[in-house]
Amino acid sequence: MAELDPTSSIPIYRQLTSHFICEIEAGRLREGERLPATRELAGQLGLNRTTVSAAYELLEAEGWIAGEVGRGSFVRSRVSAAADWPRLLTPSLVPRNPALTPVAISFAHSRPSEDLFPVDAFRESTEAVLRGPGLSSILQLGAPAGYEPLRRYLLEQARSEGDAHTDDDLLITNGCQQALDLLRQVLVRPGETVALEDPVYPGVRNLFLQAGASLTGVEVTRDGIDVEALGRLRPKIAVITPSFQNPTGTTIPFERREALVRIPGTVFIENDIYTSLRYQGAPLPTLKHLDRSGRVVLLRSFSKVAFPGLRVGWVIGPRPLIQRLTQAKHLTDLHTDQFSQAVLLHFAQSGRLADHQRNMLQAGRSRLSAALDGARQFLPAGSRWLEPEGGMNLWVELPTMLDAGGLLSRAQAEGVAYLPGRSFSVSNQHHNALRLSFAGLTEVQIARGIQILGSISQQELEAERSRDREPVLAMV
Amino acid sequence: MAELDPTSSIPIYRQLTSHFICEIEAGRLREGERLPATRELAGQLGLNRTTVSAAYELLEAEGWIAGEVGRGSFVRSRVSAAADWPRLLTPSLVPRNPALTPVAISFAHSRPSEDLFPVDAFRESTEAVLRGPGLSSILQLGAPAGYEPLRRYLLEQARSEGDAHTDDDLLITNGCQQALDLLRQVLVRPGETVALEDPVYPGVRNLFLQAGASLTGVEVTRDGIDVEALGRLRPKIAVITPSFQNPTGTTIPFERREALVRIPGTVFIENDIYTSLRYQGAPLPTLKHLDRSGRVVLLRSFSKVAFPGLRVGWVIGPRPLIQRLTQAKHLTDLHTDQFSQAVLLHFAQSGRLADHQRNMLQAGRSRLSAALDGARQFLPAGSRWLEPEGGMNLWVELPTMLDAGGLLSRAQAEGVAYLPGRSFSVSNQHHNALRLSFAGLTEVQIARGIQILGSISQQELEAERSRDREPVLAMV
Repeated sequence: MAELDPTSSIPIYRQLTSHFICEIEAGRLREGERLPATRELAGQLGLNRTTVSAAYELLEAEGWIAGEVGRGSFVRSRVSAAADWPRLLTPSLVPRNPALTPVAISFAHSRPSEDLFPVDAFRESTEAVLRGPGLSSILQLGAPAGYEPLRRYLLEQARSEGDAHTDDDLLITNGCQQALDLLRQVLVRPGETVALEDPVYPGVRNLFLQAGASLTGVEVTRDGIDVEALGRLRPKIAVITPSFQNPTGTTIPFERREALVRIPGTVFIENDIYTSLRYQGAPLPTLKHLDRSGRVVLLRSFSKVAFPGLRVGWVIGPRPLIQRLTQAKHLTDLHTDQFSQAVLLHFAQSGRLADHQRNMLQAGRSRLSAALDGARQFLPAGSRWLEPEGGMNLWVELPTMLDAGGLLSRAQAEGVAYLPGRSFSVSNQHHNALRLSFAGLTEVQIARGIQILGSISQQELEAERSRDREPVLAMV
Repeated sequence: MAELDPTSSIPIYRQLTSHFICEIEAGRLREGERLPATRELAGQLGLNRTTVSAAYELLEAEGWIAGEVGRGSFVRSRVSAAADWPRLLTPSLVPRNPALTPVAISFAHSRPSEDLFPVDAFRESTEAVLRGPGLSSILQLGAPAGYEPLRRYLLEQARSEGDAHTDDDLLITNGCQQALDLLRQVLVRPGETVALEDPVYPGVRNLFLQAGASLTGVEVTRDGIDVEALGRLRPKIAVITPSFQNPTGTTIPFERREALVRIPGTVFIENDIYTSLRYQGAPLPTLKHLDRSGRVVLLRSFSKVAFPGLRVGWVIGPRPLIQRLTQAKHLTDLHTDQFSQAVLLHFAQSGRLADHQRNMLQAGRSRLSAALDGARQFLPAGSRWLEPEGGMNLWVELPTMLDAGGLLSRAQAEGVAYLPGRSFSVSNQHHNALRLSFAGLTEVQIARGIQILGSISQQELEAERSRDREPVLAMV
């Protein structure tokens, strides 16, 4: 007790408290050990007994010791002062993505090209909102369902196109990813079955995986998800991207869409973010449009056409669902950024979005064309790919001897990146597949990138074949 | 089968399929009933047997019937085509707030005054970002942890003030509400104990309630949360607002802050959104500042000072926690709106935020003063309130005979709204308390509003007392 200092400005009882905390933290006083009785310690130290009692009370209040009537005070179970984070945190169930390095030609991201962003039109819309009379109320706390003028605009537009029925309502979200997350919160209990397209966008798979859902992958054919297989499965929930699915680029034809919405009992989450990027062929009705039983929930976003950095998407569905989602949205983050909602409303209402969409279609058409030409010209014999009518992605299957994950580091060394098929798999398949997201690259980059991939694949195929021809050494 | 039409463009097998679906949906064919054998039906209808088989295959594929080898085809269990949303949705566990009507003087929202928003400064910062060279990349998809220049700015600022240690990192969120939601996701398993201040901001309580946590309210004294009670409880997690707590306005003094962070084992979520609104008294260090064991997680936001419609907040904590939170953020909504992050960075870095904070302090000081004057002048004898040194809220306890929830409809009829104490309760107490959020009102409105509340309370008290004095009628 040498450290008690009666001249200090810190009261003696606090000095005593600190002494005992040090003893406990250093392990010199162990769990269950008894502290000296107050009378005894006061005598030893020449202190007033109330001083010792005050110290013990503070120690007890802070949870270091526990007093037991008639027995004394004991050191409580040792909880390390330093946080043990790995033990405290819930585990992440999300598989790691392959490590991507910055490269000259990246096919890895399914997102619009920065070079095509209509920044002047964006400036004009932003300035219009800055000059508008409602600026202060846009910057004030808003309603969970979204900025009302945008909400009304989107709902009326969907109604006029038959994509919202009279019983439907609309919630604004931070892009489609949050819409999926909120739907997960209000629809999926742990262990319930969620059917996903296989392969699928990893953000969908990982979200439901982390939530403890039972995931079932349903094969994607060249006509989109296998409707017959889904009909046999009858899951509680199915997430479907009917047009230009990510990663396969496939589109479900009209008759299969009709069959899909007739599968009884299933709730369909329709991920409709690529539809406006149709480069050829006739437009198709959404599942939401075809559904008459109120079991389709439509997800849309500005992000695949306009400015993904702004994070504005929306959900259209039956009113009881939207009400419940709006409660969940309120708990999650109060509401979506209102300034961006107001700017995007102006951007859409003023016709600037439609102008930009035309540019995006023109660019997308040439880029898809460059990707398909590149595939035909440069990929090794035995490669296959699906020819999408729109969207941002080309799904390539290399000869089955090849492993697209294994090729990635070589490709990156030569300045080309992509995501290998396994990243999209629900059932750990697609080892020889890869996704080429062409929308963010110029035609020249696309051709050059696929040429490099073709040449690496060809070399690897030849190496594999020569390994097959090597004489097998006798075991000795 | 009168409806089969061989001249239609719809193939016969599809017409047959539609017929059976109608029969099943109308309940004329019931669950478990057997369909006619294909050979038999083909004979009856004069059709080729393969046509009937094709119809049955489609019915089976769409999940309406199931074939059993050697026994025939049976109608599958009846799942109503129309969605039964109340059954499909997870239940909301959130108590309803009292219905608020639009009134002239609303004390109901703890948010800054729209009239004080520095809209010119906001326009200048927005225009600077619009003119800046990085606009396209700000509008492109970003990183889950946040807009890197803002992240770095906030982290460096916190480090320079001792609110971030070298092992800490920072994640940008959509305001503090999302930070709380992400922390819930990565820290709280159902049934685990979370300690909350009682009374507390309902958005905190409801979030953990919905997540299935076991909530324990710890009393708020005039020195903030009862540290001794918390020390006895030793919860896994405690959410604490040390300065100008919502709703009570209380602040934890220095010595109790020190005692708090020494409670062993508990992770502290420090909700530090009001600190910059200190109208009097000396600033106090944050819990994060005092903590040396890495168990305090600091939550901050621009929303209580600047523009809540923009939804930008942040979390500072030990690196393993921030990494896990960043994964959760990525799954939840990819990242926070980048344009608003860039605008707020400019607003802060250019000194406009500090200028605005000075205005907010001046206005807040007068408004708090008006609220305290109003309380002294107009509230009935027996009312009590805590005198906050900052923030946006005054917590009033009316005489215990009164019920603040019951008074609300009368107050609203006279043009005044507030939130009653029960809305903030963890343990269903505080019936006679109410929260007056004064920050969004002028001094004149505050005085007038409290005068009306005082007069209603006084009348109700007199009515109660006269009811007590009424002669008790003899039972006959």
